[in-house]
Amino acid sequence: MTEHGVSRRGLVGGGVAVAGVAAGAFVAGRATAAEGSAGPSAEDAFAFRGAHQAGITTPAQDRLHFAAFDVTTGSRAQLVALLKAWTEAADRMTSGLPAGEVGPTGGAATMPPDDTGEAIGLSASGLTITFGFGPTLFRDAHGRDRFGLADRQPDALRTLPHFPGDALDPDQSYGDLCIQACADDPQVAVHAIRNLARIGFGTVAVRWSQLGFGRTSTTSTAQSTPRNLFGFKDGTANIKSEETADVEKHVWVGAGDDARAGWLAGGSYLVTRRINMTIEVWDRQPLGDQEAFVGRTKDSGAPLSGGTELTEPDFAMPGSDGPVIPRDAHVRVVHPDTNDGVRMLRRGYNFVDGSDALGGLNAGLFFIAFVRDPDTHFIPVQNKMAKVDALMEYLKVTGSALFAVPPGIGPGEHVGQALFS
Amino acid sequence: MTEHGVSRRGLVGGGVAVAGVAAGAFVAGRATAAEGSAGPSAEDAFAFRGAHQAGITTPAQDRLHFAAFDVTTGSRAQLVALLKAWTEAADRMTSGLPAGEVGPTGGAATMPPDDTGEAIGLSASGLTITFGFGPTLFRDAHGRDRFGLADRQPDALRTLPHFPGDALDPDQSYGDLCIQACADDPQVAVHAIRNLARIGFGTVAVRWSQLGFGRTSTTSTAQSTPRNLFGFKDGTANIKSEETADVEKHVWVGAGDDARAGWLAGGSYLVTRRINMTIEVWDRQPLGDQEAFVGRTKDSGAPLSGGTELTEPDFAMPGSDGPVIPRDAHVRVVHPDTNDGVRMLRRGYNFVDGSDALGGLNAGLFFIAFVRDPDTHFIPVQNKMAKVDALMEYLKVTGSALFAVPPGIGPGEHVGQALFS
Repeated sequence: MTEHGVSRRGLVGGGVAVAGVAAGAFVAGRATAAEGSAGPSAEDAFAFRGAHQAGITTPAQDRLHFAAFDVTTGSRAQLVALLKAWTEAADRMTSGLPAGEVGPTGGAATMPPDDTGEAIGLSASGLTITFGFGPTLFRDAHGRDRFGLADRQPDALRTLPHFPGDALDPDQSYGDLCIQACADDPQVAVHAIRNLARIGFGTVAVRWSQLGFGRTSTTSTAQSTPRNLFGFKDGTANIKSEETADVEKHVWVGAGDDARAGWLAGGSYLVTRRINMTIEVWDRQPLGDQEAFVGRTKDSGAPLSGGTELTEPDFAMPGSDGPVIPRDAHVRVVHPDTNDGVRMLRRGYNFVDGSDALGGLNAGLFFIAFVRDPDTHFIPVQNKMAKVDALMEYLKVTGSALFAVPPGIGPGEHVGQALFS
Repeated sequence: MTEHGVSRRGLVGGGVAVAGVAAGAFVAGRATAAEGSAGPSAEDAFAFRGAHQAGITTPAQDRLHFAAFDVTTGSRAQLVALLKAWTEAADRMTSGLPAGEVGPTGGAATMPPDDTGEAIGLSASGLTITFGFGPTLFRDAHGRDRFGLADRQPDALRTLPHFPGDALDPDQSYGDLCIQACADDPQVAVHAIRNLARIGFGTVAVRWSQLGFGRTSTTSTAQSTPRNLFGFKDGTANIKSEETADVEKHVWVGAGDDARAGWLAGGSYLVTRRINMTIEVWDRQPLGDQEAFVGRTKDSGAPLSGGTELTEPDFAMPGSDGPVIPRDAHVRVVHPDTNDGVRMLRRGYNFVDGSDALGGLNAGLFFIAFVRDPDTHFIPVQNKMAKVDALMEYLKVTGSALFAVPPGIGPGEHVGQALFS
């Protein structure tokens, strides 16, 4: 705890977190700590404002709280007011400050605090907050324009098609708006979503929310590769933030991509898939079969064609019965070489949500991917995977959503400003 | 990753984790790392064997995975075999080793691994695994003796009574057996429960399971006090492991406590309560009201009668309208001075499990307490709290369970050995 400097208790001694953001900076820069701060500080803060939203190419944090919201008002003005309030609160919280100026304990006893308090004393913890707009924000289920935005709906922002094997729970799918909060301390991620939901009371309602306890991706070459609940390394071949050409090509929407949706340039599309794993069945499969399904060794993560984790798989290398990396191995099915060269920036998390009706764990992978265009970068690969991937026998997709992620927020702007102006 | 020494990849270079346990040691000692180990090691391991089970007075770790199981066999021999297998696997995993000797990748390609692999490369992470026996392990719903244990059922081990305000979901309550896994890395806690469930396949089924993302208690004077989702410090007045006389008096079952259940001496009772908080309603209460409900300030956690967090509350101090700590304030209602001096050792965790039907978060506190006798140390306090505590308006209890926690496991023993022998 500190009486001065930047802390979630509030800015007792004045001063503002200096967000070291260069417009257009590729990876959101780390904010510099305010002078004289001790204890909780902004030293582990990422800048909220910039050319692109943080939480995409930012090195994947350890913990996730993701929430989808339904808009409960018909008022465009109220919706815009919420986006402004969310922007301000997100800017503050990602700097390690309370959600509002008064803070959790700084106000009058007769007023509700403007921060809920559970992050008092905690640092920014690498928190990023990323906003997205779902197709139903533009048009309702009957095609009606809800907020005067229909003619600016991106062409690719449609409810994802039904894929083979989908067993979607509508209460875990879809949404008008989404917020992805990632942090290295789960209490900080939960605090962010909880306060944004609080601020949205009367304008939005939480449609679904998902905690992820462990990252399953690397978005920087500086990060080690984590493991998913199949026990395999996940994210080895993910786009890394250092691969700037591939990020430009596969993640950010280009200025000319969609004539109707110029507001989305510099943004991205966010796909979520709640993928339940039948881990009890998986756990009874022989090691060799598990490795054949994945196409990599379980230990080092090297492709079955040899080398180390980062060695490119050799899909032509013969094995004793067909290629050494089987035709239905996951690594082959989703590899760019077999998918017109498309890559995704994945940012998924392991989850366990209690137990299922069969006496097993309700567990799996909450898949998140950022792509330039779902029509080219997600739907074809997912269709193929659903049809031929050997892993599909151990997967059940129970949630699905697609959002358009507006570009970064400039100084004085609010999230999605270009869409609403 | 390391090729030698203790690692979850297996003991490639031989050697055994040296568990620095002194029988009767008050707090389970930290195991010493095996010689020459690099990378993942047992340096952050707690000894599994000792006079008492670990995970009770052990300094509360940051993350929780708790599971309750139903026994699906009628065979006592099969049940005992499972307890032996669980003991061996728990001993290994708490030392930072894989669940089985072969490990996740050390076996034949034709065999399923005896560890699921998602903890490869992770350290012991302070993992503790604590086992408990529910009332239904002794007698079924019709009072029938299931495994020849009925005459050894502890008198106090009965389904908890219905308390005012309980809205229990049977699918989140009760259980024949329980396992509490606590660790500083959630992937390690999940890995432990998942592997124990895997080992139990065919003998037990997961009845319910609960993740906790952040501890809400301190069980050592060396720990800082965390915050619950009301935004208040929680666990300030908890029994600390250093308070050895109170631990003896309030936590461990004494040798003469229950003539039928001598096997439980040195053990404890574990109460779980899944307490949903109506956080959206709470967040709209004025700060002064929140503090009056709790009886402490939100900022420092000091009692409203003044001082610092650790100052004893002065319940007689007059305020402007009655005592300054209101008669229905939580701190007063549950304080030992107003409850015949009883104390609990609490070990709860914050949880968020998606959203509720009203557009809010399904969130709250997963309450865990270890007590010497629920009839004296839990039920009266809970009854009183349910009737008069001001916080109850913001709480809904959706899960509840009681387990008898057998004493520590000695060398060569299995968990619950005295019960079955």
